Amino acid sequence: MFDVMTFGEAMMRLSTTGFERFEQASDYKMELGGAEANVAVGAARLGLFASWISLLPENSIGFSARNKIRMTGVDTSWVKFSKKGRMGLYFVEFGANPRRTKVLYDRENSSIRNISLEDFNFQEILKTRLFHMSGITPALSTSCEKATKEAILAAKANGALVSFDVNYRHKLWTGSAAKTVLEPLMKHVDILITTEEDIEIVFGITGETFGDSARKLQKKFGFKVVVITVRENISVWKNLWTAIAFDGNEIYTDRKYKLEIVDRFGGGDSFTAGFIYGYLEKNGNVQEALKYGNAFSALKHTNPSDFSWASLEEVESLLIQKTLRVER
Amino acid sequence: MFDVMTFGEAMMRLSTTGFERFEQASDYKMELGGAEANVAVGAARLGLFASWISLLPENSIGFSARNKIRMTGVDTSWVKFSKKGRMGLYFVEFGANPRRTKVLYDRENSSIRNISLEDFNFQEILKTRLFHMSGITPALSTSCEKATKEAILAAKANGALVSFDVNYRHKLWTGSAAKTVLEPLMKHVDILITTEEDIEIVFGITGETFGDSARKLQKKFGFKVVVITVRENISVWKNLWTAIAFDGNEIYTDRKYKLEIVDRFGGGDSFTAGFIYGYLEKNGNVQEALKYGNAFSALKHTNPSDFSWASLEEVESLLIQKTLRVER
Amino acid sequence: MFDVMTFGEAMMRLSTTGFERFEQASDYKMELGGAEANVAVGAARLGLFASWISLLPENSIGFSARNKIRMTGVDTSWVKFSKKGRMGLYFVEFGANPRRTKVLYDRENSSIRNISLEDFNFQEILKTRLFHMSGITPALSTSCEKATKEAILAAKANGALVSFDVNYRHKLWTGSAAKTVLEPLMKHVDILITTEEDIEIVFGITGETFGDSARKLQKKFGFKVVVITVRENISVWKNLWTAIAFDGNEIYTDRKYKLEIVDRFGGGDSFTAGFIYGYLEKNGNVQEALKYGNAFSALKHTNPSDFSWASLEEVESLLIQKTLRVER
Amino acid sequence: MFDVMTFGEAMMRLSTTGFERFEQASDYKMELGGAEANVAVGAARLGLFASWISLLPENSIGFSARNKIRMTGVDTSWVKFSKKGRMGLYFVEFGANPRRTKVLYDRENSSIRNISLEDFNFQEILKTRLFHMSGITPALSTSCEKATKEAILAAKANGALVSFDVNYRHKLWTGSAAKTVLEPLMKHVDILITTEEDIEIVFGITGETFGDSARKLQKKFGFKVVVITVRENISVWKNLWTAIAFDGNEIYTDRKYKLEIVDRFGGGDSFTAGFIYGYLEKNGNVQEALKYGNAFSALKHTNPSDFSWASLEEVESLLIQKTLRVER
Amino acid sequence: MFDVMTFGEAMMRLSTTGFERFEQASDYKMELGGAEANVAVGAARLGLFASWISLLPENSIGFSARNKIRMTGVDTSWVKFSKKGRMGLYFVEFGANPRRTKVLYDRENSSIRNISLEDFNFQEILKTRLFHMSGITPALSTSCEKATKEAILAAKANGALVSFDVNYRHKLWTGSAAKTVLEPLMKHVDILITTEEDIEIVFGITGETFGDSARKLQKKFGFKVVVITVRENISVWKNLWTAIAFDGNEIYTDRKYKLEIVDRFGGGDSFTAGFIYGYLEKNGNVQEALKYGNAFSALKHTNPSDFSWASLEEVESLLIQKTLRVER
Amino acid sequence: MFDVMTFGEAMMRLSTTGFERFEQASDYKMELGGAEANVAVGAARLGLFASWISLLPENSIGFSARNKIRMTGVDTSWVKFSKKGRMGLYFVEFGANPRRTKVLYDRENSSIRNISLEDFNFQEILKTRLFHMSGITPALSTSCEKATKEAILAAKANGALVSFDVNYRHKLWTGSAAKTVLEPLMKHVDILITTEEDIEIVFGITGETFGDSARKLQKKFGFKVVVITVRENISVWKNLWTAIAFDGNEIYTDRKYKLEIVDRFGGGDSFTAGFIYGYLEKNGNVQEALKYGNAFSALKHTNPSDFSWASLEEVESLLIQKTLRVER
Repeated sequence: MFDVMTFGEAMMRLSTTGFERFEQASDYKMELGGAEANVAVGAARLGLFASWISLLPENSIGFSARNKIRMTGVDTSWVKFSKKGRMGLYFVEFGANPRRTKVLYDRENSSIRNISLEDFNFQEILKTRLFHMSGITPALSTSCEKATKEAILAAKANGALVSFDVNYRHKLWTGSAAKTVLEPLMKHVDILITTEEDIEIVFGITGETFGDSARKLQKKFGFKVVVITVRENISVWKNLWTAIAFDGNEIYTDRKYKLEIVDRFGGGDSFTAGFIYGYLEKNGNVQEALKYGNAFSALKHTNPSDFSWASLEEVESLLIQKTLRVER
Repeated sequence: MFDVMTFGEAMMRLSTTGFERFEQASDYKMELGGAEANVAVGAARLGLFASWISLLPENSIGFSARNKIRMTGVDTSWVKFSKKGRMGLYFVEFGANPRRTKVLYDRENSSIRNISLEDFNFQEILKTRLFHMSGITPALSTSCEKATKEAILAAKANGALVSFDVNYRHKLWTGSAAKTVLEPLMKHVDILITTEEDIEIVFGITGETFGDSARKLQKKFGFKVVVITVRENISVWKNLWTAIAFDGNEIYTDRKYKLEIVDRFGGGDSFTAGFIYGYLEKNGNVQEALKYGNAFSALKHTNPSDFSWASLEEVESLLIQKTLRVER
Repeated sequence: MFDVMTFGEAMMRLSTTGFERFEQASDYKMELGGAEANVAVGAARLGLFASWISLLPENSIGFSARNKIRMTGVDTSWVKFSKKGRMGLYFVEFGANPRRTKVLYDRENSSIRNISLEDFNFQEILKTRLFHMSGITPALSTSCEKATKEAILAAKANGALVSFDVNYRHKLWTGSAAKTVLEPLMKHVDILITTEEDIEIVFGITGETFGDSARKLQKKFGFKVVVITVRENISVWKNLWTAIAFDGNEIYTDRKYKLEIVDRFGGGDSFTAGFIYGYLEKNGNVQEALKYGNAFSALKHTNPSDFSWASLEEVESLLIQKTLRVER
Repeated sequence: MFDVMTFGEAMMRLSTTGFERFEQASDYKMELGGAEANVAVGAARLGLFASWISLLPENSIGFSARNKIRMTGVDTSWVKFSKKGRMGLYFVEFGANPRRTKVLYDRENSSIRNISLEDFNFQEILKTRLFHMSGITPALSTSCEKATKEAILAAKANGALVSFDVNYRHKLWTGSAAKTVLEPLMKHVDILITTEEDIEIVFGITGETFGDSARKLQKKFGFKVVVITVRENISVWKNLWTAIAFDGNEIYTDRKYKLEIVDRFGGGDSFTAGFIYGYLEKNGNVQEALKYGNAFSALKHTNPSDFSWASLEEVESLLIQKTLRVER
Repeated sequence: MFDVMTFGEAMMRLSTTGFERFEQASDYKMELGGAEANVAVGAARLGLFASWISLLPENSIGFSARNKIRMTGVDTSWVKFSKKGRMGLYFVEFGANPRRTKVLYDRENSSIRNISLEDFNFQEILKTRLFHMSGITPALSTSCEKATKEAILAAKANGALVSFDVNYRHKLWTGSAAKTVLEPLMKHVDILITTEEDIEIVFGITGETFGDSARKLQKKFGFKVVVITVRENISVWKNLWTAIAFDGNEIYTDRKYKLEIVDRFGGGDSFTAGFIYGYLEKNGNVQEALKYGNAFSALKHTNPSDFSWASLEEVESLLIQKTLRVER
Repeated sequence: MFDVMTFGEAMMRLSTTGFERFEQASDYKMELGGAEANVAVGAARLGLFASWISLLPENSIGFSARNKIRMTGVDTSWVKFSKKGRMGLYFVEFGANPRRTKVLYDRENSSIRNISLEDFNFQEILKTRLFHMSGITPALSTSCEKATKEAILAAKANGALVSFDVNYRHKLWTGSAAKTVLEPLMKHVDILITTEEDIEIVFGITGETFGDSARKLQKKFGFKVVVITVRENISVWKNLWTAIAFDGNEIYTDRKYKLEIVDRFGGGDSFTAGFIYGYLEKNGNVQEALKYGNAFSALKHTNPSDFSWASLEEVESLLIQKTLRVER
């Protein structure tokens, strides 16, 4: 019995160094990233028993991807290697004001896009307290869409909580395509984690305030909890981060973190992992979940890679931190 | 027929990494820089057909310099290799408040300083819509001074616009030496790009405001356009950038860019390239030229190297940019 | 009028450093490679006016590929950017005895595979003394096969010499598929450059000696010159290299080079470039061509990257070299 | 039920780069090494279900050590973190003829040296087909010596095969101290893997030939199999590697591998892992075990790190390899 | 006759790069640090004749430590190499808001902890205008405590000024242990340099203002000068730095420096070096000493390493600096 | 009283990495080199009290050069900083068979070339057992030629032994110019260290054997000892090294070292340092001197940089070395 299982794609990330633009670069740093993989890693870092389900190409690049996940303590028993498709890639160049950080995707025909329903028997696999997915997976291919549905239904049938991050990607599908696919899934979702932008694009929901939006969403789909994460881009190197939550009853808020940005990729996924940790380990206390989510996300922004390398101890220490002196 | 031709020196730049001081460093990054080369590169990046005229030493370091320019798309047909002189160098260490970024020049006896009037037949070479030079070239040697004059006259004779950046360098000459050489050239210049500091040192002109200075300059020399670029050093890592222009009629201003500084070298040259682009491609619209200049310069500050690696598309996107989110 | 034009794919090459295996690596070096691009680069290094014709994706990775070629002096006017397809990649890990150097291709759906006959009007483009292609291009897709045929015919029609490197790649097609496509093209080829292995697989031709094989090939297809390159793998770090040629008349041989292998990729392509240089510039003297080919190839093996960075001066100096002392 | 379990120390390895001597170096590469950890990693690479038992300090460096093992697929459930002791380190500088590669140990007071018999209940833990240790562990401290004995007895009691590598380290103990501790353990050992030097120092056994030595050893202690690995140092960068085995009956030999040395650390441990793989998976066929051991060891020498990153497929391919061409 | 002598431990510092967390890192940068070594280096950089007294292990890592100090111009005649003990290490990972920079010590059983009173005859060695130590040395071991006392007494007996930095380290001892050891030494100290936090923990002294604290301290122990350094952590990357001094008479203050933090280690030690420089070279002018201390410390924060690589010229230039433009 | 003093130029060396050619390189490694500096460093490494006399430019690059020497323990009291001239540079790219390692000098107008006889009072400075120079210094400029003569005469007058390395550099002067300058100096030289090539070019002396040449040289100039070093270039990565000596009486020979070449720069200078060490410390025993010279030189070839980083202990261990196993 796992605490958390997630299912989704991971891609190799090739990033330039020293703020070099793609056309300048000769040296690339290779890491791994993918929304659901990032969440599994975050959960494992915080001490949960986490497993990531995926399909990777059966070659050294695919094995390397598995290794990079395995290194963090995530269970990879359900990572399968396939002769179909390739490893998706994305190229990253980090920005500085006023230049935005930029991603260039090369993710076509990845192994997971070629998934067939025989690849995973989700009913048997999903023995977990919570199952998490994002809106990226169903956008990858028709068979991914089917697998998403099947996985969520299997999780529910097995009595797991289901959390979902909308994670709209305009390169993968339109807002209306997303709506068509995602709306029917929402009734199986217990915890929805999203942003203002995504719910407007996908569900057409806007609100005067974040709380207002959360209320509307919750009302429409009946989620146990809706979370809206909020990032303010003071500049490319300086962001503010917080999130609000609504449990159908009360609006929960937390402090705003002032972030010095080393790498903002996976910041939202770390929020999710922290939130899940708090929710599962603090008896569904939404206020606590929110705090763990925000603190874990804040720490994530300070290390390179999509993964958070912070620990539970650091998160809890940040919750009460009074100083920025060197920690000796 | 080129859009832009420039003529001047380029030096190999050796910079330390990770904010190391020269006395700490064992690893150096080698790149190329030089005011006129930078302008040619910027023009080429923006899609203009640009050529850089220069003399380099006939050895692998000289060839390497040519290659680094050629890589950006600048035409190097008029780069000649000479057995006389050496490749000029400059060493760079990047600062952090309150330590200023520092340059150490090792540029004596460079090949271009040994130029003779037989090396280039400017009358034949300068087939271009615009010819650009800076005040550095005539400061290098007596033969460079002569070549500068000859080149500018040839450009005018061929009907090209002439733009000029004062670019005063106190290590090369005094303000009064600069005045003696540069003042007689000014009547051939259409577009002057400079700073408050330089015009005070070289032309003895000061004003209550930037506009005031621009007016005085324009009145004195009769330029088509005078541009004054304005940098505010909030701190070493944070600058504000803008510029103003005067066309004899109207003062043009633009927004101030808040810059997170990766590398400020070549920031002024990228302004020039952007301004030239706007001026040539937007029918001499000074307001547009100013906007393109500022945006292109702002982007330059965010990539390592003296060259800008931004694209026209990015400049135009910055002109209307509303967000600092990751560009996916 | 170019001296040499080539047409074919180029891929981004990502290689690990320090003999790391793929599963160990976090840092990759990015370079460019592709048989026909390598030949064009080699020709340009030797002073020929060379142009490379290709299709690349219209994004920063594609532009970067173009830049890396342009840097060497190859003309890239005929490199087009396409919205279809992606940049092909290949991953490299360097071996040490008894582990072979390994390549992992990720080249599906590259832009050039999506070529259509409207993309290039070869009749107009191919104004060149010699046109070179390899057997990789027609193996990429049906439209690439058509374009290959059209290009070769156009070159012949325009009076160019045609050189061809069989370059059989078993991941792309079978020997018999290669035979079906390549045999009909051979009558248009003047200079064939190949290896023992490839002519056995593709044309089913074997010989007692290299000379024997060359004779049979020449007899069958009527080439002006057949060249067989010969590599002996003493160990992974130590190879012997030579080649033989047959002009229908005489067998030409040359010394064997003892190579300390830094990077053997592109070694054959540099042979081709050197051979073409010698053939074109020494009035079709096959013996000279062979010498230039071998020396240029030998030097290629000593620098990282698929490209040769040796110069004509170095090649000619190697032809008469008597010492291995430091060159000061 | 594991295939292989090993128990022993691992240390962080800090190696200089580019053949720099310690007094030159500012940049160090950090990796993990340790005889028993290396064997577990090798076994896991070859597809066995392997677990490594150890004690590490409870801090980020200790966690990092665990991660580096976990990344390879070795089970780390039995890696415990302790507040006692520190992470042992060793510094490495790679040699070139005539300078030998050098190790500088900083391994005092490591966590595992502070082991107490309560830390591991070996009887319960050692559910495995084979249990492997080396002579390093009992040399670390008195409690390590006790734990070694207890572990071996528990393994035997649980019906596991026991393999043992003498691995004499003169910095840790004298030959006679080693003899006193190791001799009594030998009767529980099924497979002994060692070298000529070590058996002379520790057991005082010498032979005319390797086979002779193996016979004497086998006769004295009654091992199922004795293996003597043989390395010839042609030069620092070039070694020959082979091994012989004796099963009480027959002497087995194998080809000599000619190695280009990238990193010879862990070469013996990879032999052990390969031998164990062959022995377990080929029904105790000593000839096969020897072949797998030698091939896996040969490949290990070609990648940086104490760990082998070769795969079973590569080992089997090397057993029949005919070429050193690039593997595409 | 030296200007400054210091006595204390130095450790090798291993820091990750690019803000990597320890568990991510494979590449470490090795440098040297230690409070008293840092002060000696700073003094030497400013032109004083400085010597550092210490014990290092007699191996390449110890020699390397000596070299790194020697490189800066510090005299190392009194650095002795010992067969006892090891080189202490500390691991550093740099933070970003809200994650603090973190140090992980591995400093047990260092050579200096094994000091015996025969190792140094301080009476003979300490021929210097000023002798400096910190509260770290007596905390290392009982023999270090004795050596500290002996050294301070010898310095006084030889007529040297004694400066002392409290430098409380909670990993080494408790506040009350520090008090027991340090209080009796204070009567021999002329210049005390410390922080608000440390004097509260060690001496139980608090004040309404920094001046107030300084007054109480001075009154209690009779120091010639008390200095309190003041750091405000605006964020991890942005600090304010200043210090105040009290000479029994007057409170001296100086400007606050706004720092962009590259590396804050050794910031306090550079203050001390600068203060000592000013005090010794400006005839005991406390106001001048304070200015030199603050400026030198400010510059230190902008270069990697515990050592300051600023020069006297740069310090004096900063004291009157008006611009943050590039220094050409 | 020093053991060894040397006087000459040092240059900053910028070398590419990974066998990159100059035209490929963006990253350069900066080190220091210069014949006489190298000898002083070697002597200091072996435990002699050595001092290097030189003139460097008064800037951070000059200070950095001094630091790099100082780090090794060489006394730099007699390194002066000058406002005249610049730091000489040389660029290095490492070869691989059949490509030779290549040096590109950029050493014009270095500070030392601008030396005046007032800069050093050699009579006062040269308090040393042995004074060493090479034929490079007098070739640099007329004032350097004068200083060389003055220094050698002063050394003799002070009773020092004089050693001299011919070190002919064809880029600096012709053989006959060298002859004119060097021949008159030879009568003051006690120990001449040279090669076959150099004595033929400079002194027109050839011999059937190395011994023959040494005899002729000794006879002509009356040296106490003549040494001829002998390098055989098996390949670029593999050399044989030895030397022979003649003391007017007997020919001394030593073993040939088989070298795996990491960096051959400074190999001859390390021979000189080792020879001087043996000669001074073994009471003028030429056989011993030869052995120390060869062993120290052999070790030098295995570390990057012109400096040897071997120790006396390693040299003496190599003299009796029987194994190439890892040194643990």
